[in-house]
Order: sequence, then C-alpha cells, then structure tokens
Amino acid sequence: MPQKKKQEPLFITFEGIDGCGKSTQILKTYQFLQANGLKVKMFREPGSTEISEKIRNILLDKKSDISDITELLLYEAARSEITIKEIQPALKQGHIVLCDRYYDSTTAYQGYGRKLDIRMVKSLHKVATSGLVPDLTFVFDVGLDIAFSRRGKDKDRLESQSKAFFQRVRAGFLEIARKERRRVKRIDAAQPVDKVFEDLKQYLVKRLSL
Amino acid sequence: MPQKKKQEPLFITFEGIDGCGKSTQILKTYQFLQANGLKVKMFREPGSTEISEKIRNILLDKKSDISDITELLLYEAARSEITIKEIQPALKQGHIVLCDRYYDSTTAYQGYGRKLDIRMVKSLHKVATSGLVPDLTFVFDVGLDIAFSRRGKDKDRLESQSKAFFQRVRAGFLEIARKERRRVKRIDAAQPVDKVFEDLKQYLVKRLSL
Repeated sequence: MPQKKKQEPLFITFEGIDGCGKSTQILKTYQFLQANGLKVKMFREPGSTEISEKIRNILLDKKSDISDITELLLYEAARSEITIKEIQPALKQGHIVLCDRYYDSTTAYQGYGRKLDIRMVKSLHKVATSGLVPDLTFVFDVGLDIAFSRRGKDKDRLESQSKAFFQRVRAGFLEIARKERRRVKRIDAAQPVDKVFEDLKQYLVKRLSL
Repeated sequence: MPQKKKQEPLFITFEGIDGCGKSTQILKTYQFLQANGLKVKMFREPGSTEISEKIRNILLDKKSDISDITELLLYEAARSEITIKEIQPALKQGHIVLCDRYYDSTTAYQGYGRKLDIRMVKSLHKVATSGLVPDLTFVFDVGLDIAFSRRGKDKDRLESQSKAFFQRVRAGFLEIARKERRRVKRIDAAQPVDKVFEDLKQYLVKRLSL
C-alpha cells in the first residue's frame, strides 16, 4: 500500500506488568503499521536516548539500593528526556509513535506498587511530559502466574520484587484502565499471542481508519 | 572542649555561584564545629551516595546534552537520595549537617538560570526533600569577574554556561536571600577568605550559642 499523504501523528503506549507480552505486541504493531505504509517510530522507556539509557542502567542495576522517591524521580527524568528528544519531534514530523511503557507504568509501579501518593506521582508526570498524553494506551492484563512463567531467570532489580508488589501493580493498571476508558484499552493477555494481537488490531484499525 | 551532651541537630547549607568560595567555607566551618566538640557531618550535592554520584556523573559530563527539565529532575533525584540516605539519618542522630549546595541551588540555577517555572521547581523540592528545610543557609555572594577568576580552567558542563546565565543565577540567590531573611544569610564573598569566615562564624556562634 502506498504511503498515505495525510497521516496524522498518533502516540500509542504499551503497558502492563513484566511478562505481560507487551514487547512482542509492540513489535507486531510496528510491523503491521509499516506494512500499511505508515511512518512509525518505536521507543522504550526508560531508555532510547543516551541520557535515558544511562538512567536506565542506574534503575535496573540489581545492586542499586534506591529509595522510592529517587526511583520515581529518575523514571520521570528518563521520561522527560525521551519526550523532548524523541517523542515530540517524531509526532511533529507526523509519525505514529509507539512506546514500550510511559507514565502509566510509573503510576502503576511507583504509585500503586510502592504506595507513593498517586496525586504527587501524577503531578510529576505533568512536569516530565510537558502535558503530553498518549492518544491510545493498551494495558496487557495477565495473571501473575502466567507473567512470572514467561520471564527469563535473570531478573533485574525491579523484576525481583515480591508477588504482592506485582499484584498491586496489576491492580493499578486495571484501575487506570477503568478510570480512563476512552484512552486506555485493557487487553486480555492470557490469550495466545496472535489472539492478543487480533484484539489490539481491532482498536488500531478503528482508530486509524485502516 | 568536651562534647556537649545536649547537642541539637542542625541542618546548614552553603550556596552560591561556582567560584564563590563556598567549598572552602564549608571546610572551615566543619573544622570549627569539630574543634568545638560538636558532631558534624559534611555532604556535597549532587553526590555523597553511590546513586547520587552516578547521577552527578551524568549531570556534570561535558558531553551530556541534557534537556532543562531532565536536568532539573536529575538534581531532584540526587537530592532525594542524599536526603533519605544521609541527611535525615544524620540529623536524627543529632549531628550538625553541612551540605555544599541544596535545593536553593536548583531554584537559582534551574529556576532563575534556565528560566524554568519557579513554582514548579519548588514543588519538586518538596517531593525530593519530603519537606526538609535547612535551618540556616549561607549564600556566598560575589561578582562574576571574581568568581570566574577563581575557577580552574577545566570547566565542567555547568560551568561552561554563559555569563548572562550566571548573572541570572546570582540574582536568583540574592532574591532567595531577600525572600527568606530568617533562614538565608547573604555573605559578602568578595572579601578575603578569613573575613568571609568571620562573618559566617558570627551567625554560627549566635545560632549555636557557642
């Protein structure tokens, strides 16, 4: 299909607990949109810029003993950098931008998971994103048993958290999806990979009028 | 002099533009207080913890091209870490804590210097410090010509800023001192080192009833 001339920028984020399968789904989405002749860029959070990758290394280092508030501020710093350096410019150029995690992850992990004040956490999102809100967000929801079984054995610092922590994080994502139904779509990620993508694609096709 | 039994914790910060001489003064203060039998701890910001030093390396790397908001969030992250891991525990143990830079530096550099919204900057201070406010703050005020001449030639990323930037930062520190007269004491740092310390010592002696 030839590239459409009037492609509108669109910011789509992929969210869920570790092991929910979102990295597979973002790749399938990327390939699907490209195959449809659309300009797409894909980023991951935290990361995707030199500074953000340095911050990511601090955050994911198993040896790092970081306080909860510092962790929160570091995620927001990485977010600010990728937003200003990559996401905003790509949207301005009319790209569809896919991001593996964005601020909903921080609300779920640091807010619900670490039990930091949700209002305070959200106020930091505004600082870090300059008010940028995803147009569409997928929450890949899956039970902890499945999520845990999907992960590799070499867990990073965050993945080594307790089961209770991840239960709070999962509940946080579901709460976000309930509160922001228009933006956030919950997808049953316990299904086989292709079925998950079929569900996702329905939202995509509708949104992009493909 | 023997150590006093009822030493009260006290949090003292040392502020001013680069080249103002605060690092010399904090050392003299540390030695003076120790010589008076007081328990003192000295920290520098950003830094003094493993995580904060890693953040410091990102911030001061000349090659780093960091956006202003990311810079702000990284300073606050480093601040959060040193506050929780070092400053609060030391104060709880009854120490006098001296800190080379604290949140006033961020207000002056990122708020006044980089022209970020001051209210937003201050809201981040509250997050990073959990509301901790220094009991006493010295602003070492000096003209740019003297400050510049005192610096070494190997400037780090922040020190390589323009003169106009440092003028805004200096004005920012003076504004802070004007607005918070009880906490913040402006000291004329164009004077010889020993005279600067004499001025500082008067406040110290009064505050600590030495």
